[in-house]
Amino acid sequence: MARVVVIGAGLGGLPAAYELRHVLPREHKITLISNQPKFTFVPSLPWVALGLKSLDSIQLDLAKTVIKHDIEFIHAAVTAINPKLRQIKMDDDRTLDYDYAVIATGPELALDALKGLGPEGGYTQSICNPHHAVLAGEAWEQFLENPGPIVVGASPGASCFGPAYEFAFLIHDQLKRKGLRSQVPITFITSEPYAGHLGIGGMATSRWLMRKFMADREIELMENTAISHFEADAVHLVDGRVIPSKFTMVLPPFRGPKFLRDAVGLTDAKGFVPVLPTYRHPEFDSIYAVGVVTQLKAVEQTPIPTGAPKVGLMSEEMALAVAQNIALELGVTSGNQCRPTLQAICFADFGNTGALFLADPLLPDAAGDRKRALIYHGIWVSWMKAGFEKYFLTKMRFGWTIPWFEKIGFRAIGLPLVEPIIPSLEPDPVQAKA
Amino acid sequence: MARVVVIGAGLGGLPAAYELRHVLPREHKITLISNQPKFTFVPSLPWVALGLKSLDSIQLDLAKTVIKHDIEFIHAAVTAINPKLRQIKMDDDRTLDYDYAVIATGPELALDALKGLGPEGGYTQSICNPHHAVLAGEAWEQFLENPGPIVVGASPGASCFGPAYEFAFLIHDQLKRKGLRSQVPITFITSEPYAGHLGIGGMATSRWLMRKFMADREIELMENTAISHFEADAVHLVDGRVIPSKFTMVLPPFRGPKFLRDAVGLTDAKGFVPVLPTYRHPEFDSIYAVGVVTQLKAVEQTPIPTGAPKVGLMSEEMALAVAQNIALELGVTSGNQCRPTLQAICFADFGNTGALFLADPLLPDAAGDRKRALIYHGIWVSWMKAGFEKYFLTKMRFGWTIPWFEKIGFRAIGLPLVEPIIPSLEPDPVQAKA
Repeated sequence: MARVVVIGAGLGGLPAAYELRHVLPREHKITLISNQPKFTFVPSLPWVALGLKSLDSIQLDLAKTVIKHDIEFIHAAVTAINPKLRQIKMDDDRTLDYDYAVIATGPELALDALKGLGPEGGYTQSICNPHHAVLAGEAWEQFLENPGPIVVGASPGASCFGPAYEFAFLIHDQLKRKGLRSQVPITFITSEPYAGHLGIGGMATSRWLMRKFMADREIELMENTAISHFEADAVHLVDGRVIPSKFTMVLPPFRGPKFLRDAVGLTDAKGFVPVLPTYRHPEFDSIYAVGVVTQLKAVEQTPIPTGAPKVGLMSEEMALAVAQNIALELGVTSGNQCRPTLQAICFADFGNTGALFLADPLLPDAAGDRKRALIYHGIWVSWMKAGFEKYFLTKMRFGWTIPWFEKIGFRAIGLPLVEPIIPSLEPDPVQAKA
Repeated sequence: MARVVVIGAGLGGLPAAYELRHVLPREHKITLISNQPKFTFVPSLPWVALGLKSLDSIQLDLAKTVIKHDIEFIHAAVTAINPKLRQIKMDDDRTLDYDYAVIATGPELALDALKGLGPEGGYTQSICNPHHAVLAGEAWEQFLENPGPIVVGASPGASCFGPAYEFAFLIHDQLKRKGLRSQVPITFITSEPYAGHLGIGGMATSRWLMRKFMADREIELMENTAISHFEADAVHLVDGRVIPSKFTMVLPPFRGPKFLRDAVGLTDAKGFVPVLPTYRHPEFDSIYAVGVVTQLKAVEQTPIPTGAPKVGLMSEEMALAVAQNIALELGVTSGNQCRPTLQAICFADFGNTGALFLADPLLPDAAGDRKRALIYHGIWVSWMKAGFEKYFLTKMRFGWTIPWFEKIGFRAIGLPLVEPIIPSLEPDPVQAKA
């Protein structure tokens, strides 16, 4: 019997736990550890921050839910991991021995990156976690009573840009509906070299589409711009310019959580977990990782530092692959190891329209090409996002990851999500790692 | 009997001569002097430069045309003017005494403003005069055989930005029709603080519309950007960046012609003629001016210097007002002096669409407001521009300025073009001048 511990119960961790349960016989124990009592469908947090949706409606009680599916749940924060001893320490001083640990913590927000960043002890809102979204919602209500200029954007070192666009466009739409838009100059400040770069070197017409959407909405666009710090009523740029703002939402840089960074040899300098194509750690056989906490090398160096994002579907792909690879190692299944395809689909709701991004794969090759890169837009995408949220929450309630009909659907549009690793076609993993 | 000399036979000068002929009895002599043998409908030069129209089709032979309307025509370049002696000297060494001189030369292109500017001795094309448009047309034909990157824009100190937008969008449209667009990165570089500023502090949604049009057409937009100099295959920016270009059309700054700058006290430092509300020179009673050569104070100082443009309709308004005011001074008519309203309408053809700008007046007040500022766009505007060209050429052939039906039309849309100057409502002209 093996004990597989999944650390983190977000878009990567919860599907990983379910998929592990799905592929491993009951003799193997699966433990899900989360410092949050609830699963949150994080992509819907912009709606929560603007009072368009209650936090409750996008959450699931983890203790109640996962136990039904024969997964142990521990509500605790991991404070240390010793990958050599295969041991985890938690904030209730318990320790836990594991055979495999799947790290799915998601990112820690690097709110100390800029002075004044963050809603607590700073002047900016965030939509990166449920607590922040609730605080943003309160700030938004206050703002509406006494409107003024707004800044939305992403700080230097950020890697996840999509939600900033989504939030800016949703704000525009909300203000318009409330008849307040003309009182509110909106400025979008991004560290991307150009709007629509998205940390992935742009895709399809994203560069032109984002600029067009900004102009359509009369949002002032500042590309390739580094924010220096924040004050209560202004955003200061590195070049000395000061942009007034009464409501500021700026995405922070991400890093790996402290307990990972503290574990010698486990992460890179930023706390992200390096992985082989199987999403196993290159040094520690017992460590796998999925989601935002994995190391993903950015496709290009940008004038102002940026990172590459991971979208929800990629986390699910990683979860599928990791569960398969652990099952293989445990001798439960046979065949080839597999890896996520890193095909990415992302829905964004822009209020009066939405955009669906399909990047296959997420990062282009050295020549800047992808197999496919498509953007569709229209109000139906907003509806799809809302529908997908409900579908995903239902899946998580039922303990599904990617059910057969979803797999068929994805295959039908050429997205297998995971693919076998054929050793003869593989680069040497040691080289691949280098 | 008085002799009224009109110097320049463009969109300001030719209508001025006709309107003078219209209001002054035959005992007064009207002389039109032009260094060009032909009138050119300058707004159509972008079409000529792209081979969409022959130069011939937008020109009129001046000698043949104006003589029919009892106007003397002299094909010569004025080399000096002595406003005290009321005397003009021409390049054939003739001198001409006048009672009134209407200066309507249009601008001189300040091609020495940047190294490499201009088609002769430089590396950039221009659509500012017929000769340049023909040269641009030849360069365009060559470019099409071996396409590469294109830069279109306006240099620091430019005041006329509209044609640059028009040219960039027409180029996009032409390349698309020829199936070459994907081979040609187009960059638009402007000294305006933002696209759509147009030297007039922007108008209506021009800022957002121009950005949107750029994004729609996948044209890279560099706003608030100062060009330093040009090389055969590149545009160098003041900040050191180098933009490759195989075909460059950059609008130069304008100034008044040398013979005006040489006349002591006649012009400002740039050679533009200062005018009272009547469009008479503040110091020299015998000097009036119309069109681009008049001094028009820009509404605001921009980070990179820009000037305020004068559109064709404004030149016609000035011509009407000046003719009325000279007639009044000659005792031919009675009533109040009048002044142009500086209401501006501008048609721009963008290839697959067009935009009609109505700014009333051209320059906003201190608070940034205008009585009206409207932008319409649609393919019908392109058709209107083509139609207007034919209409204007017909008018110039028949010796009309603004015929009664056009006046009725303009009044119907609230554009009287000229308005009486009611002395009690006027600021002291000496103060107004200061």
